[in-house]
Amino acid sequence: MRIYDIIEKKKRGLALSREEIEFFIGGFTGGAIPDYQASALLMAIYFQGMSAEECACLTDAMSRSGEVIDLELFGRHSADKHSSGGVGDKTTLIVAPLAASMGCTVAKMSGRGLGHTGGTVDKLESFPGYRTALSREEFVNQVREIGVAVVGQTENITPADKKLYALRDVTATVDSIPLIAASIMSKKLAAGSRSVTLDVKCGSGAFMKRVSDACELAELMVDIGCACGRRTAALVTDMSFPLGRCVGNTLEVKEALEVLSGRGDERLTELCVELSADMAEGALGLTHEEALAKAREHLANRLALKKFKEWMIAQGADAELVEHPDRLPCARYITEVRATESGYVSECDTELIGKAAQLLGAGRVRVGDEIDLTAGIELAVSRGDFVMAGSVIAYLHSSSEKSLEDAREAVMSAYKFDFIAPKAVPIVLHRITK
Amino acid sequence: MRIYDIIEKKKRGLALSREEIEFFIGGFTGGAIPDYQASALLMAIYFQGMSAEECACLTDAMSRSGEVIDLELFGRHSADKHSSGGVGDKTTLIVAPLAASMGCTVAKMSGRGLGHTGGTVDKLESFPGYRTALSREEFVNQVREIGVAVVGQTENITPADKKLYALRDVTATVDSIPLIAASIMSKKLAAGSRSVTLDVKCGSGAFMKRVSDACELAELMVDIGCACGRRTAALVTDMSFPLGRCVGNTLEVKEALEVLSGRGDERLTELCVELSADMAEGALGLTHEEALAKAREHLANRLALKKFKEWMIAQGADAELVEHPDRLPCARYITEVRATESGYVSECDTELIGKAAQLLGAGRVRVGDEIDLTAGIELAVSRGDFVMAGSVIAYLHSSSEKSLEDAREAVMSAYKFDFIAPKAVPIVLHRITK
Repeated sequence: MRIYDIIEKKKRGLALSREEIEFFIGGFTGGAIPDYQASALLMAIYFQGMSAEECACLTDAMSRSGEVIDLELFGRHSADKHSSGGVGDKTTLIVAPLAASMGCTVAKMSGRGLGHTGGTVDKLESFPGYRTALSREEFVNQVREIGVAVVGQTENITPADKKLYALRDVTATVDSIPLIAASIMSKKLAAGSRSVTLDVKCGSGAFMKRVSDACELAELMVDIGCACGRRTAALVTDMSFPLGRCVGNTLEVKEALEVLSGRGDERLTELCVELSADMAEGALGLTHEEALAKAREHLANRLALKKFKEWMIAQGADAELVEHPDRLPCARYITEVRATESGYVSECDTELIGKAAQLLGAGRVRVGDEIDLTAGIELAVSRGDFVMAGSVIAYLHSSSEKSLEDAREAVMSAYKFDFIAPKAVPIVLHRITK
Repeated sequence: MRIYDIIEKKKRGLALSREEIEFFIGGFTGGAIPDYQASALLMAIYFQGMSAEECACLTDAMSRSGEVIDLELFGRHSADKHSSGGVGDKTTLIVAPLAASMGCTVAKMSGRGLGHTGGTVDKLESFPGYRTALSREEFVNQVREIGVAVVGQTENITPADKKLYALRDVTATVDSIPLIAASIMSKKLAAGSRSVTLDVKCGSGAFMKRVSDACELAELMVDIGCACGRRTAALVTDMSFPLGRCVGNTLEVKEALEVLSGRGDERLTELCVELSADMAEGALGLTHEEALAKAREHLANRLALKKFKEWMIAQGADAELVEHPDRLPCARYITEVRATESGYVSECDTELIGKAAQLLGAGRVRVGDEIDLTAGIELAVSRGDFVMAGSVIAYLHSSSEKSLEDAREAVMSAYKFDFIAPKAVPIVLHRITK
């Protein structure tokens, strides 16, 4: 088998066989296939696409390129969730304990973040003492005892994906739906859960701007997951506005606690209920209606909040702060942003809000950058609200004064106001199950 | 400027600017742009194509990446010819002295070959003593005195093309018409002639199998040449049958001498007359009719043959053999191939004839391989001939018996016979001038 022939075949628009895909992933990960041939193949895949079957083979090969986690020791109820990311996305902080409180086994790995805020693992570190790295024994014991643990990604999981992603990132081949799907799903397969729930964001603040692209990606990932023997479902969800009211690490943790206490932002709550319910459907065999009802119940009766606290304390977080999150540190400077015109909030450039949060110190520009856990933005208005000129639309949180002006400008220019109220957009746009 | 943005731009189907193309060629040739980004760009170019303007910029940048030959010291009559190659193509051996005898300055570089036979330079070495490398002074003096010199390609001409070609060769991006055109034309620009005549082969024995592709390539090369300030024209010519009767190095030299003596194969002669006439049109300003008449005249009155001998002797070839080419060495084994059925010769798999010649030792498999100058094939029949079962269709020439059987089989299976005579195909299919 020669990589040249594989490139030529894909270039001509033909489907690659399982053997050819395994030859590529094995050779590329091991170093036998040089980057310049891999990048030519990636560009050919960008143009010619891949069938669901090819994607499943690619994902499978990538998922087996390094360590594969076996969650079978925890029984049959393991459930994982993946969000494609977006400004203000703190769903994992809520969904993990909520699903665990319903009986799912949530043994999860999460990444650190590049961009507007940190990743889930960064957010969890808002609680001093939270340990993102556990020994295997600690991890197993914690999951056995309380049904939930969230740790940082291990170094040796899906090396093929890491190497491919690094190459795609410098060869303008990131925005290929088959490659995105394989990258996400390979990590989910290697992470070992029987049931996978995908949250594919769509809109100005998401990688996928168009609903049709988001649905295509979601469909493909569900196909891949099912073909690889996992129960998989996807929600395509709205990210044309920031998710919830807070953007920033500690701010988002506090907001997550509000949702877990049953008094959080409505759309964010609804999304978390839908995601947790799907996890319970997949892992526990509940019907959709049963699962939704149970998820709502576990927010109302605070079982989910109780699970969150158990989880934090089990994983090393300062118990006092977990019990009294109002004592979590605050940013030194908190300043208001006021509207300069009146009208209904009709649009929000979500990426600009993310950029403002990053300016304030909430996110990393480069891998390894320190982030300011207390920095971020509290949004005071959301889509459809009527705002009077001069009223507060957001609060900026920062440890230094110097970035406040740029961030204020970004937030102000992110919002558009209109004379008429915009149409409501549901948080869950599509639900894809097989 | 970032190569990432250039890849992304081409990927989206936009035209690259001159600055972007120069940035790519400069960075890639100098090593600042890594192969994996260059190969992604090449694959994007394969899919999105390039406009004639982009191609001209690319060709210009590539042509200036190394040494650029200045032929202005020889005056205004310099003319170059390029053939895209094919089985039995010995046109340079005939066209160079024929055009020179008409008054063109033919100061030419030619390559060695990989494949069915050697390249022009290998063929010229059939004359013991022929020097393919001349000092600058020797080259200038010879061109001044007799108007023709053909040397091997210098090492330092168009390094960008060499590096790009090597990368295309391993990333399945050879068959991109813009890249083929830029590769050929960059070498022609760097070689310095004012007038360029292109012979684009088309058919089973050529790289371009379809007339439409050959015409597209020819048009594009003419556009590039004109945009870069050279008078450029192209002939699209038939290569569905081997060109002439002989395939092999010394055999082709002997056939070239037959054409120069006015008694060569008709189609081969016609092609050489057309090519030389176009060179004379371009370099000397003759009309097409004047140029054709003069080319025919110089074959008939043997001025072209005289020029060939002057050229060979000036460049070091054994004068006795030049005067008596019948004394050139012969292969040890010459064996007949006979038809097994009767009929009109309707088709010939030209590539299979080439493969047979290579089996006999006439061509190289790897760079640096020795070739057997005496080996090759004399074809006894051509398209439309009626052949009786049992009559000779070819003679195989070889220094060893061991490859004869395989070569015989290849030659026999190359021909197809039919009950009815096939339609005649003109040697020149299209003529492209601007």
